[in-house]
Amino acid sequence: MPDPRFFRRAGPFSIADIAQRTGVEITPGADMHLAISDVGTIDDAGPTDITAFYDRRYVIAFAGTRAGACVTTEALAAHAPSGCAIVIAADPRAAFAEICHAFYPDDSPPVAAEPVFGHGVEIGSGAFIDTGAVIGANTRIGANAVIGAGVVVGDNCRIGANVTLSHCLIGDRVVLHPGVQVGQDGFGFVPTRQGLRKIPQLGRVIIENDVEVGANSCIDRGAAGDTVVGAGTKIDNLVQIAHNVRIGPNCVIVAQVGIAGSCTIGAGVLIGGQTAVSDHLTVGDGAQIAGKSGLMRDVAAGEVVMGYPAKPIRQFWREIAGLSRLTRRDK
Amino acid sequence: MPDPRFFRRAGPFSIADIAQRTGVEITPGADMHLAISDVGTIDDAGPTDITAFYDRRYVIAFAGTRAGACVTTEALAAHAPSGCAIVIAADPRAAFAEICHAFYPDDSPPVAAEPVFGHGVEIGSGAFIDTGAVIGANTRIGANAVIGAGVVVGDNCRIGANVTLSHCLIGDRVVLHPGVQVGQDGFGFVPTRQGLRKIPQLGRVIIENDVEVGANSCIDRGAAGDTVVGAGTKIDNLVQIAHNVRIGPNCVIVAQVGIAGSCTIGAGVLIGGQTAVSDHLTVGDGAQIAGKSGLMRDVAAGEVVMGYPAKPIRQFWREIAGLSRLTRRDK
Amino acid sequence: MPDPRFFRRAGPFSIADIAQRTGVEITPGADMHLAISDVGTIDDAGPTDITAFYDRRYVIAFAGTRAGACVTTEALAAHAPSGCAIVIAADPRAAFAEICHAFYPDDSPPVAAEPVFGHGVEIGSGAFIDTGAVIGANTRIGANAVIGAGVVVGDNCRIGANVTLSHCLIGDRVVLHPGVQVGQDGFGFVPTRQGLRKIPQLGRVIIENDVEVGANSCIDRGAAGDTVVGAGTKIDNLVQIAHNVRIGPNCVIVAQVGIAGSCTIGAGVLIGGQTAVSDHLTVGDGAQIAGKSGLMRDVAAGEVVMGYPAKPIRQFWREIAGLSRLTRRDK
Repeated sequence: MPDPRFFRRAGPFSIADIAQRTGVEITPGADMHLAISDVGTIDDAGPTDITAFYDRRYVIAFAGTRAGACVTTEALAAHAPSGCAIVIAADPRAAFAEICHAFYPDDSPPVAAEPVFGHGVEIGSGAFIDTGAVIGANTRIGANAVIGAGVVVGDNCRIGANVTLSHCLIGDRVVLHPGVQVGQDGFGFVPTRQGLRKIPQLGRVIIENDVEVGANSCIDRGAAGDTVVGAGTKIDNLVQIAHNVRIGPNCVIVAQVGIAGSCTIGAGVLIGGQTAVSDHLTVGDGAQIAGKSGLMRDVAAGEVVMGYPAKPIRQFWREIAGLSRLTRRDK
Repeated sequence: MPDPRFFRRAGPFSIADIAQRTGVEITPGADMHLAISDVGTIDDAGPTDITAFYDRRYVIAFAGTRAGACVTTEALAAHAPSGCAIVIAADPRAAFAEICHAFYPDDSPPVAAEPVFGHGVEIGSGAFIDTGAVIGANTRIGANAVIGAGVVVGDNCRIGANVTLSHCLIGDRVVLHPGVQVGQDGFGFVPTRQGLRKIPQLGRVIIENDVEVGANSCIDRGAAGDTVVGAGTKIDNLVQIAHNVRIGPNCVIVAQVGIAGSCTIGAGVLIGGQTAVSDHLTVGDGAQIAGKSGLMRDVAAGEVVMGYPAKPIRQFWREIAGLSRLTRRDK
Repeated sequence: MPDPRFFRRAGPFSIADIAQRTGVEITPGADMHLAISDVGTIDDAGPTDITAFYDRRYVIAFAGTRAGACVTTEALAAHAPSGCAIVIAADPRAAFAEICHAFYPDDSPPVAAEPVFGHGVEIGSGAFIDTGAVIGANTRIGANAVIGAGVVVGDNCRIGANVTLSHCLIGDRVVLHPGVQVGQDGFGFVPTRQGLRKIPQLGRVIIENDVEVGANSCIDRGAAGDTVVGAGTKIDNLVQIAHNVRIGPNCVIVAQVGIAGSCTIGAGVLIGGQTAVSDHLTVGDGAQIAGKSGLMRDVAAGEVVMGYPAKPIRQFWREIAGLSRLTRRDK
């Protein structure tokens, strides 16, 4: 469920309310008066939450969901557990986006108390720390940095000048270089007749201890659930980390890498500069992806790949040499 | 002609003045005392403006120009319409750059009135709104954002923290995430004996309604004429849009894409992450360019391309498979 | 030796002190009481400095070093000049990182006098100029820019809004567009049992006269020695210049290029957009690297290369055509 430090919730709404606001259809037998208090994922939603199911890969999770209600298609509804009120939509993803907009209509920060500062905190000229933020001991915030409402920064951190943080929890001894942007909306839209409609991005960014992030890199918050950067991982300049990416500990991610949404990167992974990682991939522990690769498949632990599309590095070099040989000019 | 909200014009100058300041040569019969008040393109220059002609592709436009004067080469001068005073330069592009510097010698903002704010505007801590700017109703400006002189932002926009806007007009319901840079100089230089000389960038950026731009993306203003992002288009993080690019409505441009100068992108185009688009290309409506491609030719409406250089996507995958087969190791 | 305008030095330390703090082993005969006042490179270290030697390529330089002390391996120690106190470490790079941390334990700026401003300087709203900075005549600093302690900016510069400068010296007539980040730490780590340990980045960035740097580009300072951008070079948006890169004069570096650590780029080099240059490469004067290339070898003066990996441009196009021909579908 969205973290109340970052998101201001409306509702509760009855199932009937939700149907009326978003055009979904209530199935016979569903309790129209059931009060729904929040949105959630199939995994974390509870008896007063509504979730969505539209991807068959999660059918087992759906069968076990504790959600009080779910929006899905007529075809998928058969997999629902008993006791889950089912509402039907032709496009459950779009309908759920509307339901999320209903619960979280406003992106202004929740009302919160004054920020809290540990001892020895230094705040640079012009830096702005919004309500509800917590800044740990001996942390230094650079000039003109902006720390959003509810953000938590640990002890002994160095937050660079002109950094913007929102919707994130930052560990201890984290270094963010100037111009880093953490916690903004992920890039999630659903096509509708009225154009591309934003999917509310209701997750957070979690940056664990001893992480370093290079200048002007961007880490988007999760759509539902969190984007995570593991302890000790080092990220270079101008890197893009999309929503719901989960990076393990002690990785090295070189400049201008882009990791698309919902990837899982293991521990101790090395990603060379300007490499792109397609969405929803898994990269095993200790894998290495050479620079400027375009990764379009999962990578096993310890595997070393290169190329566009990325393949085992020996195959990459064999193909480069082979192409040169096969196309040599006749003398 | 450059928008007077953004550019402070000197002059008028007579043809003789211009020749003296920039070393161009006046052709016999041209009116040396003609007062020139501004610079313009072949298309938009009027009877008191000077333009330049050095690219034969625009010879028909040149023959019909309403410009009062034009700098061109001796060889191209024959195509001039009667009544257009012709000045000759060995390198008309360099000479026109000098003429533009004469008319616009100073990049400090024009003198303007106090900014104007609609009702319900919220301005974050440390944000700076320069003179002549207009901020629409219910728009929120993030902390430490900088809105340049004369910039117009529509209603219900969300301008992120640490954003910089200049030389641009922004529609309604536009979302700019933190660190976005809009309206700075395009990357235009002309080689001279004294090194690379800046071509004055005298256009604007137009961002239409319902556009979203991701964190730390950059959109340069036009050199002459405008850079345009069409209504409903969504741009991800760390994207580069160069001067005079024109993007249609409802496009999706994924993170770290770069679109070089003067490209025209149609409606509903999808461009995958880290793709590069070479300058002066045209991409048709509904085309799709897969991630990490290097596009070096025009793309037809509805075409799907991939690769470096980008080619039809089936051909891309056929070649990948073929290369693997042709270079397979002997057992 | 690190520039005292930017780095606050501790010490001096005796060789015995250093051994105790960092676990290195003093060789028999070395003067344990020798006072070491600073760290340096093999080339610039003097009789009271300590340096490190772990890369056999520099064996000749090592034999001629004037350093008072050096950390190296047992195997390499034989190459030391007489009079240089040798301390031994299994991993001299990691040990030297610890020695650097001992001499430069704190990344807060040195104590310095108020900043100094030339005549005609204009400082934007919210801009912050730290102690010891020097801003040249007629230079304009954009709103909310941050100029770090000790930074020197020349005359007639335009420093954009939301720029951050630290640890750098900037020449005259330099233009830095909004969001540029100059002088932050390079991306240098050494693996240790406790994870990746930062190698202190004790160099600077030198930007010579008439350079232009595009929006949101990043230039890291050197690890030891400087990162240099030569006079008249023009850099586009979102470019990454890593530590200890040396770029000659009058180069053109298009958007989203990345140049990895310790590359040397000659004069008048053209690098197309989104190209990556691997670390420690040399590119000769007047060379051209086409857009989106992945350069993995040195390039001779005047050579024109393209591809991933980059090769002579004619070979690139021949291979593209050949692959297409070899994999054509049978009719």
